[in-house]
Amino acid sequence: MISLAGGLPAEELFPLEELAQAYARVFKTGAHALQYGLTEGYTPLRDVIASRMASKGMTVDVDDMLLTTGSQQAIDLVARVLIEPGDRIFVEDPTYLAALQIFKFHSAHIVPIATDRDGMEMDALRRELASGPPKFVYVTPTFSNPTGRVWTRERREQLLALCREFDVLVLEDDPYGDIAFDVDALPPTLYALDAQLGGDTHVIYTSTFSKTVVPAVRSGWVCAPKSVAAALVRAKQAADLHSSSIDQQALYELLTHFDIDAHIATVRDEYRHRMMILHRLLREQPWSGVRWERPSGGMFLWLELPEHVDTLELLQTAVREGVAYVPGHEFYAGVARKNTLRLNFSHSGPDTLQEGVRRLARALQPVLDES
Amino acid sequence: MISLAGGLPAEELFPLEELAQAYARVFKTGAHALQYGLTEGYTPLRDVIASRMASKGMTVDVDDMLLTTGSQQAIDLVARVLIEPGDRIFVEDPTYLAALQIFKFHSAHIVPIATDRDGMEMDALRRELASGPPKFVYVTPTFSNPTGRVWTRERREQLLALCREFDVLVLEDDPYGDIAFDVDALPPTLYALDAQLGGDTHVIYTSTFSKTVVPAVRSGWVCAPKSVAAALVRAKQAADLHSSSIDQQALYELLTHFDIDAHIATVRDEYRHRMMILHRLLREQPWSGVRWERPSGGMFLWLELPEHVDTLELLQTAVREGVAYVPGHEFYAGVARKNTLRLNFSHSGPDTLQEGVRRLARALQPVLDES
Repeated sequence: MISLAGGLPAEELFPLEELAQAYARVFKTGAHALQYGLTEGYTPLRDVIASRMASKGMTVDVDDMLLTTGSQQAIDLVARVLIEPGDRIFVEDPTYLAALQIFKFHSAHIVPIATDRDGMEMDALRRELASGPPKFVYVTPTFSNPTGRVWTRERREQLLALCREFDVLVLEDDPYGDIAFDVDALPPTLYALDAQLGGDTHVIYTSTFSKTVVPAVRSGWVCAPKSVAAALVRAKQAADLHSSSIDQQALYELLTHFDIDAHIATVRDEYRHRMMILHRLLREQPWSGVRWERPSGGMFLWLELPEHVDTLELLQTAVREGVAYVPGHEFYAGVARKNTLRLNFSHSGPDTLQEGVRRLARALQPVLDES
Repeated sequence: MISLAGGLPAEELFPLEELAQAYARVFKTGAHALQYGLTEGYTPLRDVIASRMASKGMTVDVDDMLLTTGSQQAIDLVARVLIEPGDRIFVEDPTYLAALQIFKFHSAHIVPIATDRDGMEMDALRRELASGPPKFVYVTPTFSNPTGRVWTRERREQLLALCREFDVLVLEDDPYGDIAFDVDALPPTLYALDAQLGGDTHVIYTSTFSKTVVPAVRSGWVCAPKSVAAALVRAKQAADLHSSSIDQQALYELLTHFDIDAHIATVRDEYRHRMMILHRLLREQPWSGVRWERPSGGMFLWLELPEHVDTLELLQTAVREGVAYVPGHEFYAGVARKNTLRLNFSHSGPDTLQEGVRRLARALQPVLDES
């Protein structure tokens, strides 16, 4: 079985030896490193993250930053702190599946906002804001999971203007921002743009080292307006006191002894290479009515099949042919576009991608022939 | 400042070198070790924990066990899965402060049940059960935090009989069970006794490696009846996907390459030694009306001062004298006995304990002279 379904980073790129050295250095600092730590997380690591954010135009007070068990926990803590049952939460449609699950877990009323290739549609957003502001708007403006899309700078600015007009918070989920195939083409984050506007912060920002270092280290972070940050710390303390401080200290050692930016550049180059292979393989198919946008970063390619194809049904055939993908259905909070599917290109090498697309083509051809 | 306040284990006993080796071995197993892991946690570690539990008379199906970020997260996930706002939760009085905070966080109605030196008072428990069963009864029957007390076997059996009669779950929090100064004198856990009764499981059991290995590794676990275990996995997936699998794999390497039982015996012996020093130092004081029970395990000694002393007020004087403790107030869900305080003996060596008690005596003498 070839899986193009998961969201796994490429293991062969993991900085295994460097991480081993980083952990070894933590143990050399002595027993104190293994005692209970701060709920907010290891302070030197927060300082390093703040510096890295500053280099991308984001100014953050480390007192407003909390280290979490992956950015998944950051989203969950934000939900925990802000959502009362029945609260409206606005999301892009489609959006990150696990975020939808979190918001449902907290009994939110999820409101999907129509989204095109430039980002959320502002008319649709304004209409929903006018009919009842949400607790927050959840967005992944840079390399969306599942669509791989990037919001334009204009849409970002429009979103912030509307959120300021209605005094609504934005939760910006940015796990893939570092994996840009053309870094210079990337618009600033919402967090950066919001700070440029001055006044009260309206953006809660979360990111993670899962995609750029390794997932197992489970280290994400979240930056929030002061009052929200304080509430997040209290929620985190109740949830688990603190995340693994061994991992946090090792990450600090890694980031201060290793050229992480060169490593990220390697990851980017390899993922761009794999994306281009997938893109070319798809183009070589004699399909008609199959569309996609070439991703400019991230880990996913979003495929749209002819309207009559249901990718959930098709998945059974695909699995029989020996290839898996994620049907688009699950990413929609609104009416699902059943003819969509998500392909991952980060975890499979060229040969696997080639064979995967071959199998996908075998599964797909009969239903394409129907139309 | 000498702190007898916290609940920190003794750093000088941490198996630093052995842990360093355990982490190094994880990195030698290859990059796959650093990929996303199972929400339930690293299976070989769950197997080892199940074996260790079996050696204490607890039979557990690893499918019903979930690894968590400390046992704190286990308590939080149980609360998250079981508590609807307003649900009654029964607790010992006094009980673990952070558990109270979790239950409040989930908007539970906390019902304190009177507790004596043998455990929860069964008449009080039956009365409350009859007036409205809770979602669960939360207890720390072995070396309570804060009191250090151990429930008798009889009380344990009575609790289980009542919980079965009213079909109520018990959450058994057992972070200190391994730190018994006389292992043979310890009654079986509720989890073990419940299994002996046969039929449906009524006990959710949680424990941790924070006290026996190191806190920073943030590795706890929870075992629950099947339906609850399945719900805990879903909640954990939403909360953070999974805890650090590097730490879990390192713990597995430690437990399989290192004589952890000999290590735990060393911890026990040292804590017993420190407890005896604290006990003797307290006995040497010319105090009247100050009472305590000599703990038979754990990390805490619970002091009762004359009725007129308020330990929260006294704390200011104590801190001025250079010693800190935790006033009893915070551990009570019901009416606080304000003349109580908790002393930790695990984190301070003999000299520190001696100076700490000297300072405490200086703070205490004037208020004792008042009576």
